[in-house]
Amino acid sequence: MSKNIKKKVVVIGGGTGTYTVLTGLKKFPQLDLSVIVSMMDSGGSNRVIRDEFGLLPTSDIRQCVVALSKKKPNELLRKLFTYRYSAGTGISGMTFGNLFMAALTDIYGSQEKAIERTCEFLGVKGKIIPVTYDNTNLVALYDNGKQVLGEHAIDEPDGNLGEHRIVELSVFPKAKANPAAIKEISLADMIIIGPGDLYTSVLSNIVVDGIAESVINSKAKLLFVINLMTRWGQTNHYKASDFLAEIKKYLFKYPDYVLVNNRKIPSRAVSWYKNVKSEPVNDDIKSTLDMKVIRGNFIHSKYYHKNISDKLTRSLIRHDSSSLAEAIFSLL
Amino acid sequence: MSKNIKKKVVVIGGGTGTYTVLTGLKKFPQLDLSVIVSMMDSGGSNRVIRDEFGLLPTSDIRQCVVALSKKKPNELLRKLFTYRYSAGTGISGMTFGNLFMAALTDIYGSQEKAIERTCEFLGVKGKIIPVTYDNTNLVALYDNGKQVLGEHAIDEPDGNLGEHRIVELSVFPKAKANPAAIKEISLADMIIIGPGDLYTSVLSNIVVDGIAESVINSKAKLLFVINLMTRWGQTNHYKASDFLAEIKKYLFKYPDYVLVNNRKIPSRAVSWYKNVKSEPVNDDIKSTLDMKVIRGNFIHSKYYHKNISDKLTRSLIRHDSSSLAEAIFSLL
Repeated sequence: MSKNIKKKVVVIGGGTGTYTVLTGLKKFPQLDLSVIVSMMDSGGSNRVIRDEFGLLPTSDIRQCVVALSKKKPNELLRKLFTYRYSAGTGISGMTFGNLFMAALTDIYGSQEKAIERTCEFLGVKGKIIPVTYDNTNLVALYDNGKQVLGEHAIDEPDGNLGEHRIVELSVFPKAKANPAAIKEISLADMIIIGPGDLYTSVLSNIVVDGIAESVINSKAKLLFVINLMTRWGQTNHYKASDFLAEIKKYLFKYPDYVLVNNRKIPSRAVSWYKNVKSEPVNDDIKSTLDMKVIRGNFIHSKYYHKNISDKLTRSLIRHDSSSLAEAIFSLL
Repeated sequence: MSKNIKKKVVVIGGGTGTYTVLTGLKKFPQLDLSVIVSMMDSGGSNRVIRDEFGLLPTSDIRQCVVALSKKKPNELLRKLFTYRYSAGTGISGMTFGNLFMAALTDIYGSQEKAIERTCEFLGVKGKIIPVTYDNTNLVALYDNGKQVLGEHAIDEPDGNLGEHRIVELSVFPKAKANPAAIKEISLADMIIIGPGDLYTSVLSNIVVDGIAESVINSKAKLLFVINLMTRWGQTNHYKASDFLAEIKKYLFKYPDYVLVNNRKIPSRAVSWYKNVKSEPVNDDIKSTLDMKVIRGNFIHSKYYHKNISDKLTRSLIRHDSSSLAEAIFSLL
């Protein structure tokens, strides 16, 4: 990599997987980082932000802000941005970061401006770009013909719907890509998707009108990070090849690079995950596929502790941001 | 005043009057400022903070934080600290500042620490000292024998109770002064009380066990700023002499200095105030009293605009922070 020209890396996602990738990559000053963020979240704090404040959801943005903000002198604000209230009728379950951005939107009269000011205020390195400014929702069509509206309903499916495959993901109403997102993608040297919930964090961006097209037309190398665990209701029993098939389905091509963890998931974690019907993703990628597969130990050594005030289910096993970022960086 | 030795000024209060005094005084680098703040607020945002979060009320502290914070680089945080939500079930009516301090209390495990960190974070000049860390409420005994518990109930009295005089103010349960408040008072060169709601913002501090005694024993000059308007339910039809009599009743002495506005209140304001049963305070202070009376134009030229999301009634006429502070400074 040339010493003087920064490489432009565009991460597309939202959620904890993207947080991990950004946390690792921000340590490389040689990178010009942007993140395109899903705007369809409808659970927990976001339901209130959408339904009661009439704003677009900001939880995915909030996580990116924390990931990309300079540690000093913003340690206190970073702590606050990850804080979730556990008391107060109507307040319990809300995140400070979402309330912060809601107040700023009211003060500045625009959510776009509020997000910009939040990034300035927390000293964010890189650009955080909402995938769309249209108010829209995810729609999943399952293999039993059932359609479900809303990210939260897809994330926590009713009854036995979680056993079924999502055969088509779309948005309703139709949403147009943020022009800034299109621009970033067109200028990228590398585009990173995953890890993260395949439909609600990753493909949720790709199905916004204009995004898939610009990824396909970009000269950037496409890198995909395979999830560590399957997720009931989204990637039930998915093997690595299933993930790749879904990427090909929505982007009409395979990624140029695939990162796969080859370290055994600790058995304690595997048995905990059985409670939520998750299992380690089986690496069944055939060497005949036209892509470079990078295998390594990408697991974070510490388990994640679930916050009791958090009403949503969070997973215990995480990618390690440093080893992931180093592997990515070596490909540039 | 000596050039090198800072004069120690201790303001005792809470609410908008104190905000005005502090805003004016902070411009004088020659002053070592402290404010001792009432902790009995129970209305609006504070009810939630007390009843649902189980914390001490912080609205009076929040106002002092904004008054004493450095404008740059904290302009955005100052704006946020004065922001009150107008949407969200359970959130509408809450102030950002109170939610900020509630989150910090949870993060640091102590409200004292949270207040300290808030002051550091917003670059507060001077010290903000809660009058007590005991969880207590104001109790007012009226001249009809009725007793009312709680700042909010006293502030907005039911029925015709507002016509009656408060003959005794106390706290229940008994509350002990914060030792830091006692210390500041003992070291003060000047103690300032008022303007502000006489019972719920000013005397609410004095009735905390230990405060009156330390004011009486302090060598500091005592300065009292007479309110511009009476307030139904607290100082209904009070003249300046009634205010002074109440100060003497709770502090066993008259103030050394009294600041009284002598500029006519604009008739438009007087007629608006009739709706809330308020009238200009009549200056009937006799020259025979052993105190220095400073009369001047202390009215702010602009009217205050009531925020529609604010559930409490706020007054329109304000003291002017600059002329008030200059008059005070000239006495040091």
